[in-house]
Amino acid sequence: MNITLAQAEKAITAAKLKSTAIDTNMNIAVVDAGANLVAFGRMDGAWLGSLDISIKKAKTARFFDMNTGIIGELSQPGQPLFNIEHSNNGLITFPGGVPIKNASGEIIGAIGVSGSSVENDHTVAEAGAKAI
Amino acid sequence: MNITLAQAEKAITAAKLKSTAIDTNMNIAVVDAGANLVAFGRMDGAWLGSLDISIKKAKTARFFDMNTGIIGELSQPGQPLFNIEHSNNGLITFPGGVPIKNASGEIIGAIGVSGSSVENDHTVAEAGAKAI
Amino acid sequence: MNITLAQAEKAITAAKLKSTAIDTNMNIAVVDAGANLVAFGRMDGAWLGSLDISIKKAKTARFFDMNTGIIGELSQPGQPLFNIEHSNNGLITFPGGVPIKNASGEIIGAIGVSGSSVENDHTVAEAGAKAI
Amino acid sequence: MNITLAQAEKAITAAKLKSTAIDTNMNIAVVDAGANLVAFGRMDGAWLGSLDISIKKAKTARFFDMNTGIIGELSQPGQPLFNIEHSNNGLITFPGGVPIKNASGEIIGAIGVSGSSVENDHTVAEAGAKAI
Repeated sequence: MNITLAQAEKAITAAKLKSTAIDTNMNIAVVDAGANLVAFGRMDGAWLGSLDISIKKAKTARFFDMNTGIIGELSQPGQPLFNIEHSNNGLITFPGGVPIKNASGEIIGAIGVSGSSVENDHTVAEAGAKAI
Repeated sequence: MNITLAQAEKAITAAKLKSTAIDTNMNIAVVDAGANLVAFGRMDGAWLGSLDISIKKAKTARFFDMNTGIIGELSQPGQPLFNIEHSNNGLITFPGGVPIKNASGEIIGAIGVSGSSVENDHTVAEAGAKAI
Repeated sequence: MNITLAQAEKAITAAKLKSTAIDTNMNIAVVDAGANLVAFGRMDGAWLGSLDISIKKAKTARFFDMNTGIIGELSQPGQPLFNIEHSNNGLITFPGGVPIKNASGEIIGAIGVSGSSVENDHTVAEAGAKAI
Repeated sequence: MNITLAQAEKAITAAKLKSTAIDTNMNIAVVDAGANLVAFGRMDGAWLGSLDISIKKAKTARFFDMNTGIIGELSQPGQPLFNIEHSNNGLITFPGGVPIKNASGEIIGAIGVSGSSVENDHTVAEAGAKAI
């Protein structure tokens, strides 16, 4: 099972709506089950550095099939996964990456959002993921 | 002057229509005046390896403000720009990358398309660029 | 549809048998539908530099859903895809990479072989792909 | 003295058995005395992001001839090897990488396992290393 472009675009549209609703400008990336980019959009005025972060968040969420923020708790100094970010050409492990599931609950991809506080990033990513 | 997300999405929509019209599945990337990704879409069934190529074509077209195929003629063995592809973390210099201009003729970004023959790639990229 | 580890191991076993039969030592890599490594084996005495080549051949074959040698014909100087090898963190476009299909003819992964002449590499890759 | 492919495959088989016994799905990598990949297997359903981590754990264990978790204690903030992970194109320094020795006690390679808790990763890596 793999996400389609139509589904990915639907997720991005929902994420953009939520981003506008909370007065932010986001980079939004969607990857498929193989962690490869399917669709991307950078809202006008969004931070340029968040482009790569949004893609890495989406990949990270699919790499480990969980919200990126969960990994970030485990990668702190003294925690079990300290410095896991050095793998896979760079992970981003703070909130804003969320797996995308189909109606059967299977993971078919992931969404990554970056451009505001990590709380806002996560809120927008959730809105995108739930649109599928 | 810089391309907006709305304009980039318009270019991708036009490119997708042209791609479907000529019975191909494309990866389509749009970068801004800074050569940074603004929007991207991978059509269902498109070659996975064309993902990176489409982005590199868009960047290459903006890096030098010309169609990628023109650079490719100059990068052949014995020609002035032989192996220029080694720069900028990898250029793609065959057709499929086209600058995007605004109504005043200023270059505001570029589009890169990959997924079929280079002729088809260029045709689809042109359709996208002309939608702006 | 995605290749399983059991299928990938079966392909590697068949490729090793063929490699021994023609008196060569090969690096053999199998990737899944997302072009991510599933299984790998380096036969004793195989060239060390062929390790990366075998993985890149497998990825290249899946990136474009065709034998790598076909791409290599198109990437020669003066041909349409000159220097395509600069994309995707490095392609290998000479023979030895072959898509793997399931019984329905769907591509579920690819195999890449490196360690001898490109003809031998291709022969061994074919033997591996046909074992599925 | 260097690990053979037959030995590496034996280690992977033992690791897979242990992984199944503790109800996990692992990525398992074996490198030789030169820290180059000899054999690899990704069990069905294993995390995709653990592919690279398992290989980096195996390399890290051979780079320094010790279990990866030991290095991780020394790479914490304020410790002597803080951020050593930036070397060698990325180390992984939490548990799951274990040197492999021959009957004479000489190190002939290493195994890296990733896909569950670091405790489980280490248990499976130990099972693989001890099979030699």
